[in-house]
Amino acid sequence: MKEYSVLGKRVPRVDGPVKATGEARYTVDQRWPGMLYGKLLRSPHPHARILSVDTRRAERLPGVRAVLTGKDLTDAEVCLDAGAEPPVAVDKVRYIGQAVAAVAAADEYVAEEALDLIKVDYEELPSVFTPEEAVKEGAPSVHDGLERNMVMDLAYHFGDVEKGFQESGYVREDTFTTPPVHPAYLEPLVSAAHFDSDGRLTVWSSTQGPGRLRDALAATLRMKQGEVRVIASYFGGGFCGKTRIFPHDVCAALLSKRAGKPVKIEYSRKEIFAVNRGGQPTAVRLKTGVRRDGTLVAMECRLMCDTGAYFGGNLVFGYVFGTAPLMTYRLPNFRFQGRMATTNNGPYQSQRGSGVTPARFVVESQIDIIAADLGLDPVEMRVRNALQSGDVTANRSKISSCGLSECVRQAAAAAGWSHRDKLPPGRGMGISCYAFATAYSGGSSVLPSGYSSAFVHVHQDGTVTVLTGVNDNGQGIMTALAQIAAEELGVPVQNIRVTLPDTEITPYDFGTMGSRATYLAGNAVKAAAGDARRQIFELAAARWQARVEDLEISDGRVRIKRDPQKSIPFAALAQASQLAGKGKPVLGKGYFSAPDTIEPNLKTGEGDMGPNLGFGAVVAEVEVDRQTGKTTVLKITIAHDCGLPLNPMAVEGQLEGQIQAATGEALCEERLTSRGKVLNPSFADYRMPTALDMPGVKPIIVETIDTTSPLGIKECGEGPQGGVAPAIANAVYNAVGVRMHDLPMRPEKIMKAFETT
Amino acid sequence: MKEYSVLGKRVPRVDGPVKATGEARYTVDQRWPGMLYGKLLRSPHPHARILSVDTRRAERLPGVRAVLTGKDLTDAEVCLDAGAEPPVAVDKVRYIGQAVAAVAAADEYVAEEALDLIKVDYEELPSVFTPEEAVKEGAPSVHDGLERNMVMDLAYHFGDVEKGFQESGYVREDTFTTPPVHPAYLEPLVSAAHFDSDGRLTVWSSTQGPGRLRDALAATLRMKQGEVRVIASYFGGGFCGKTRIFPHDVCAALLSKRAGKPVKIEYSRKEIFAVNRGGQPTAVRLKTGVRRDGTLVAMECRLMCDTGAYFGGNLVFGYVFGTAPLMTYRLPNFRFQGRMATTNNGPYQSQRGSGVTPARFVVESQIDIIAADLGLDPVEMRVRNALQSGDVTANRSKISSCGLSECVRQAAAAAGWSHRDKLPPGRGMGISCYAFATAYSGGSSVLPSGYSSAFVHVHQDGTVTVLTGVNDNGQGIMTALAQIAAEELGVPVQNIRVTLPDTEITPYDFGTMGSRATYLAGNAVKAAAGDARRQIFELAAARWQARVEDLEISDGRVRIKRDPQKSIPFAALAQASQLAGKGKPVLGKGYFSAPDTIEPNLKTGEGDMGPNLGFGAVVAEVEVDRQTGKTTVLKITIAHDCGLPLNPMAVEGQLEGQIQAATGEALCEERLTSRGKVLNPSFADYRMPTALDMPGVKPIIVETIDTTSPLGIKECGEGPQGGVAPAIANAVYNAVGVRMHDLPMRPEKIMKAFETT
Repeated sequence: MKEYSVLGKRVPRVDGPVKATGEARYTVDQRWPGMLYGKLLRSPHPHARILSVDTRRAERLPGVRAVLTGKDLTDAEVCLDAGAEPPVAVDKVRYIGQAVAAVAAADEYVAEEALDLIKVDYEELPSVFTPEEAVKEGAPSVHDGLERNMVMDLAYHFGDVEKGFQESGYVREDTFTTPPVHPAYLEPLVSAAHFDSDGRLTVWSSTQGPGRLRDALAATLRMKQGEVRVIASYFGGGFCGKTRIFPHDVCAALLSKRAGKPVKIEYSRKEIFAVNRGGQPTAVRLKTGVRRDGTLVAMECRLMCDTGAYFGGNLVFGYVFGTAPLMTYRLPNFRFQGRMATTNNGPYQSQRGSGVTPARFVVESQIDIIAADLGLDPVEMRVRNALQSGDVTANRSKISSCGLSECVRQAAAAAGWSHRDKLPPGRGMGISCYAFATAYSGGSSVLPSGYSSAFVHVHQDGTVTVLTGVNDNGQGIMTALAQIAAEELGVPVQNIRVTLPDTEITPYDFGTMGSRATYLAGNAVKAAAGDARRQIFELAAARWQARVEDLEISDGRVRIKRDPQKSIPFAALAQASQLAGKGKPVLGKGYFSAPDTIEPNLKTGEGDMGPNLGFGAVVAEVEVDRQTGKTTVLKITIAHDCGLPLNPMAVEGQLEGQIQAATGEALCEERLTSRGKVLNPSFADYRMPTALDMPGVKPIIVETIDTTSPLGIKECGEGPQGGVAPAIANAVYNAVGVRMHDLPMRPEKIMKAFETT
Repeated sequence: MKEYSVLGKRVPRVDGPVKATGEARYTVDQRWPGMLYGKLLRSPHPHARILSVDTRRAERLPGVRAVLTGKDLTDAEVCLDAGAEPPVAVDKVRYIGQAVAAVAAADEYVAEEALDLIKVDYEELPSVFTPEEAVKEGAPSVHDGLERNMVMDLAYHFGDVEKGFQESGYVREDTFTTPPVHPAYLEPLVSAAHFDSDGRLTVWSSTQGPGRLRDALAATLRMKQGEVRVIASYFGGGFCGKTRIFPHDVCAALLSKRAGKPVKIEYSRKEIFAVNRGGQPTAVRLKTGVRRDGTLVAMECRLMCDTGAYFGGNLVFGYVFGTAPLMTYRLPNFRFQGRMATTNNGPYQSQRGSGVTPARFVVESQIDIIAADLGLDPVEMRVRNALQSGDVTANRSKISSCGLSECVRQAAAAAGWSHRDKLPPGRGMGISCYAFATAYSGGSSVLPSGYSSAFVHVHQDGTVTVLTGVNDNGQGIMTALAQIAAEELGVPVQNIRVTLPDTEITPYDFGTMGSRATYLAGNAVKAAAGDARRQIFELAAARWQARVEDLEISDGRVRIKRDPQKSIPFAALAQASQLAGKGKPVLGKGYFSAPDTIEPNLKTGEGDMGPNLGFGAVVAEVEVDRQTGKTTVLKITIAHDCGLPLNPMAVEGQLEGQIQAATGEALCEERLTSRGKVLNPSFADYRMPTALDMPGVKPIIVETIDTTSPLGIKECGEGPQGGVAPAIANAVYNAVGVRMHDLPMRPEKIMKAFETT
């Protein structure tokens, strides 16, 4: 293993102090002179034709500066053809909460009042709220031109599934469901836009992808990319819920264009739950055949899921779900059928661990069922089937490195699996595996998501600014990038600053999503810092008449390898470049793209899920109260293989964060609706685990050597999310003997299961 | 002359629309969440010992968050040793208006109230207000350790001055004075600082030199340069009055450190006039010897000037003044004596055309006197003596290019000089010459002012961002830099954006001052854009299997020179670099430093004033009312040699702006004081010409070939300032026969001159 001085070390978050003290400014905190406040009028109907929108009274209200309705949109701005949600509805509304009109006013109260003055005549239309109903003959049609509301109908297989089942000693079939969930980020959806007199648009938005948003705005508004500038502030959480352009981004821009002032639109929590973009509900029929020793032989997975009222960008969900069963275990015969229907629910999009999280629940639950049926140890059964480094999956994905078996063994050992049978009554232990692709490459041929670039600017005193287009979603990437630059340049992390993205200034990056940011941007920063180091070395080489290759750098000094007594401070060389070099700046540039992979094919299911995969195993220990059905998660032991752990403290932070979120998905979180209306659109009612609900956590990092990138890193921010819920479900079964097929495992469901068991 | 498609063309200001509409945000417009308001308590005495400062009542006032007095300063923060003004006075106050204490409070009213609650006990000390008194034996001592308050005593000569006078056919001696003036920028002095919990300082300041301020703050606060970040907004004027660190910059930082919140300090206009930093008053004894044909033979110049209460950075004024007489005419024998004394006036520093402006008034007035005395034509006398390209001055400065004779001829012709004798009574015409060094190199060996660097970032759609550390003082450098990048890259100016400086992100530059910015940063941008073009060419070369040298670019397309039908859009190559190139960004970097020159020596007066000089001539036509003494400037004809005029419209704008300002200096502007107290500290009382007072202007651009830089450009933003006032004074003499030796030529002075003539 290479010897690093900064990488692999426990480094405190560089953005920690300003976030802890409240000094960090988020997009919601930003104010501009002359700024107007935008508000959106929302549909009370799940499905209706808009007969007329009368905004005259609103326009006359003092303080109102601009009003926007569907009539004002150009074809490009509507962008309905891809199933994407228009900024404001044009002819129809398709879910409760869809925007029908937008106003900008001098303050929020006037804007609210103006909404009350807008009169909309609707003709209510029949609506549909489940995919199962939506695909029935004669169901209400949500979008014209879609047969039976189907937006996706995938079917593919690998190997000979029928033969596999025939040759299996045991075949098990179950049905599972997972509910709609919401990312529940703390910072609300907010976007402020300013169209200036030069026709240039500047946007501040709480988005996971400033670069991606810039491109989407330019495309929607028919502008050049260089005419649109997206500026990031500190970011208050996204969890895949802020990956794409939203109606309020476009509305803020169009209102600003009309009003000639900056317009800011900030959603209330109730609006956030209505416009949704969270995780899809799924219903899955899973059939698995194994040999009596537990070896997996064949699997068939049939998914039905809901995309809600709009489906732009939702289609990759099926591919991700459908390939997830192949990512952890050797499975020669596999068939997938994935269907997705549009309904009159608020549109779904993605949630951390997108697709993989629900898939893991069904696969890991059924493996536990099979192990019980066959009297096998769930740990042993998983080790027996686990993928290994060098494997190629049935869908032709190369496994560059895999520490899964080791993760299972270490998690089981640390959790005290061997004592599982001796737990007191009402207590139980369950295990689950997971995997997730780094830099998920879905759609890489059309989207500039497979690469990133970076600039590393060395100031005269040897301090360094790293310019990157990725923003920190809270996972600590600013710290990681600072570490990478510090390692390459041989200077302390404290001397490195990482900028926030600003599409006009920072190099292009698609965004922090799909577990791509640290892998792609991190390797880009490594390349850029290496380039800067070479420039510094050239100065030292000229001074010593040495060769660049003979130099090394550490502890802030450049040395000749064979004569390490001779050294010059890094800072002195940085200064010399400017002063003696007559202003020559030290600026490194670098880029990195994911290694050539078999591009995923949504139709055939083939291809590399990503350049590499992170793996892991979770052991949950729970206590279930037989009187109330309440499950308490006592302890989660998690072993994770992320290649080189850049910053073990940050890796642990990722694991802990996902344990919190996934415990919620397992036990309580659900976006409840009734005929399309959200019943729990607040943090009081959308119940998430708090710090008091957190189980004890034992994180274990399993290091593997991954050679797909110079840094040797793999993902750790999405896979674990999928591993936790099934481990808890399996532990519940172990504790009280009831098998929960449907998430979340709320007490009343467990009580009902007690009754029927 | 090289054929350009964008350079040399009339290009509207890229920042024009947002400035005209009021959308451009200046530092004064900026607000931050939690921001506090800082105010400074100012001394009512011109000179006093501080016995005690009691801030206890102020500290107890609700809303007050931090209080700062001289006792709180470290030695570094005091920075008194260089004669620089401390942020707040420590033991003594030395001028009326000097800061004694600073407070930060929740709003401006509380801050004002807190100032009232601070009790300062002073022991008044004797004070001195003119340099003539200050240097007398027994005068009050302003600073300990200075003999007779002298901060500068220069004496040098070239040639044999005595012999020169002896050989002159005619010798003339006169005394002239110029008054203290103020730059009178519109945006007030303002600085906001935020010390965050990481110990990093971010400063937003209305400064001409973000880079220079960053370095000065780091030095004063003993921080690393990388720990201090200075962010520029649009800039509301400086005119050399905002070139250096100010007390409020340091006070805002120190108050923020104490309060833990951003602190903004904005000066009132009254405060701005008190803290001063404007142009020095001068008293000059000038003696000139000429042959009877008007050929200059010898000159002796004795300057006495006032530096006010502090003199850090003031010393170069003497060198600049003392070399100015050598910058326009061949003058083999020259002697200079320059003295500067510290007084209890608000500190002077510099004003557009610093040093050169008052020097030109005395030299050009006396040449006019001599021409009249000898019956010579003032135009002919100037042409006879004018420097020529290739000349080397007596103080060993190389004249790389000089269009002065041509300027004189063209200005005289366009103004109708030949009809001067036929003007009606009360009307007159006068001429004057001027020159100014580009990138004034004073102190280049200690300051990083002799170079600049730039990054040029090409986005995927072929739009371009230019990153520069220079800000636009209003002269149009953003437009100039956009033109330069557009020319190099063969794309329209509209596709180029130039960023505002941010020391964390943009490459280092010292600042927009000393006529250095367009020359140094412009050539740096040319280099950086050329580097980016090479990267684009490499892509095209690879595609066509051609050589980079065989390619050319124009109209947004790359072509093979010998086969111009074959072309690829620039934008397509930019995109290919990222997509096909797997994320490879197109980023050019470049730098430029002033060519090697003889460094100016403040002791000997030798050296190059700058890498080149801009030259010009002004003809003023005036009407003087014999009943009131009021002078009306009817027309200014100005011919200016700036090498290549990058943007003729911007050059004309510079000429017009300087005509406005210099007309004010000629006729009305004066910072009036009585025992150190400013009598006219407002725009109502500090009278400047308005649009209604503007004369007709006829600008002429005389193009010369200057080879000291690739762009061939020379200054046009400071020299003309010096040429206008003497032309007006000479025209007044021509109109009514009175010779004004003292500026400004207010009506009452002219009336008095009528009485004594």
